[in-house]
Amino acid sequence: MKRYAKKNFPVAKTRRFLEPGPIVLITSAHKGERNIMTLGWHMMLEYDRVGCFIWDQNHSFDLVRRSRQCVINLPTVDLIDAVIDIGNTHARTRDKADKFERFGLTPVPATKVKAPLIAECYANFECELIDTSLINKYSLFVFEVVKAHVATAPKYPTTVHYRGDGVFMIAGKNVSHRRRFKRVNL
Amino acid sequence: MKRYAKKNFPVAKTRRFLEPGPIVLITSAHKGERNIMTLGWHMMLEYDRVGCFIWDQNHSFDLVRRSRQCVINLPTVDLIDAVIDIGNTHARTRDKADKFERFGLTPVPATKVKAPLIAECYANFECELIDTSLINKYSLFVFEVVKAHVATAPKYPTTVHYRGDGVFMIAGKNVSHRRRFKRVNL
Repeated sequence: MKRYAKKNFPVAKTRRFLEPGPIVLITSAHKGERNIMTLGWHMMLEYDRVGCFIWDQNHSFDLVRRSRQCVINLPTVDLIDAVIDIGNTHARTRDKADKFERFGLTPVPATKVKAPLIAECYANFECELIDTSLINKYSLFVFEVVKAHVATAPKYPTTVHYRGDGVFMIAGKNVSHRRRFKRVNL
Repeated sequence: MKRYAKKNFPVAKTRRFLEPGPIVLITSAHKGERNIMTLGWHMMLEYDRVGCFIWDQNHSFDLVRRSRQCVINLPTVDLIDAVIDIGNTHARTRDKADKFERFGLTPVPATKVKAPLIAECYANFECELIDTSLINKYSLFVFEVVKAHVATAPKYPTTVHYRGDGVFMIAGKNVSHRRRFKRVNL
C-alpha cells in the first residue's frame, strides 16, 4: 500500500483535515501493547483540540486512558478495506493479533507520544489526553494535538465518511469560496 | 430556492446524515427572537445525541442556552452562499435583520421545539439541550434529537464540509460496503 511522504504541519490548522468529518484510525500504545481502532465520532473543540468518542468496550479505551496519549491517523479511500476490517476486529475479546501486521500497515515512531503513526495514512496527529472527566459519562476523550504530520501531496486527501449501515460517503472535490468570506472569519 | 418534501425519520439513525461531518445551520428561538448560525464543529455522542460547539460570542449561544432547544438543519451545496453569508453575520453586534428574510429561507414550525425548521434544508433535527455543564468550559452543548425530518429524495444529500480558510469539501459519491461488515457492527 502507498506510504505518504509527510512534513511537519501547524497543529492550529488541524481543522483542515478533521473538521470535514472523516473516518480516522486511532493508534495507541501502553506497556508493550499497541492497537488500532476505527473512529467516526469526533469533533474540533478548539483549533488544536479534538474530542473523540471511544466506547468502553474497545480495547483502545484502556490503552488511551492509561497512556493518556494517542495518534489520530487519517486514512484515504485506498485503505477502506482496512478501515472496515479494523472496525470489525475486537482486540479485547478474540482477535489478539497485532493489527499492523494483520492489515499490512507500517508503524512509524511518533515524536512526542508513544503511540505509533501509520505510514499509509495521509496525516497523523499526535495527541495528549488533557481531560479525563468526560470519559465515564460520555465516553468523550478531549485531546490536544501536540504534533502533526501531513502528506506533501496531494493538497487534499480523498477521505471516507461513514453513514452507518455499511455506507460511506467518499470525499468529493475541494472548492475555495475564500473571496465570499469576511476577512475576520477566515 | 428548492424546498425539500420531507417525512418523519427515526432519530436513532441521525448518524446517517451527521456523522459524515457536514456544515449545518442551527436555528434557535427565544422570547420573540430567532436566529440562524453556521456550524461545523459537532459530533455524534450517541445514536440520538449530538454535541455542538457554540461559541459564546454568537447570538445563538444565548438563544439556545435560554430556550434549551434548537434545530440542526442540513444544507446542501445549492445553499453554500447562504451558509457562508450566515457565517459572516453576527446578530449580536451589528446585523439585526432577520436571517430568514435576509437570505430567502423559509421558516417552518417544528413539532417539539420552538425553533423553526428551514424548509430549504435537506433534513431538520429537532433537539433538546440535555446537559449544560460543558458550556462554560468547552462551549459544548449536548443535545438529544427528539424529532427528525428528512427529504424523501434524493437518498443522500450533497453536503458541504468545511476545511477553514474558505475551502469546502463537497460530498462525493455514496458507496455501500455492507457485505464486508460483520453483522454485529452494522
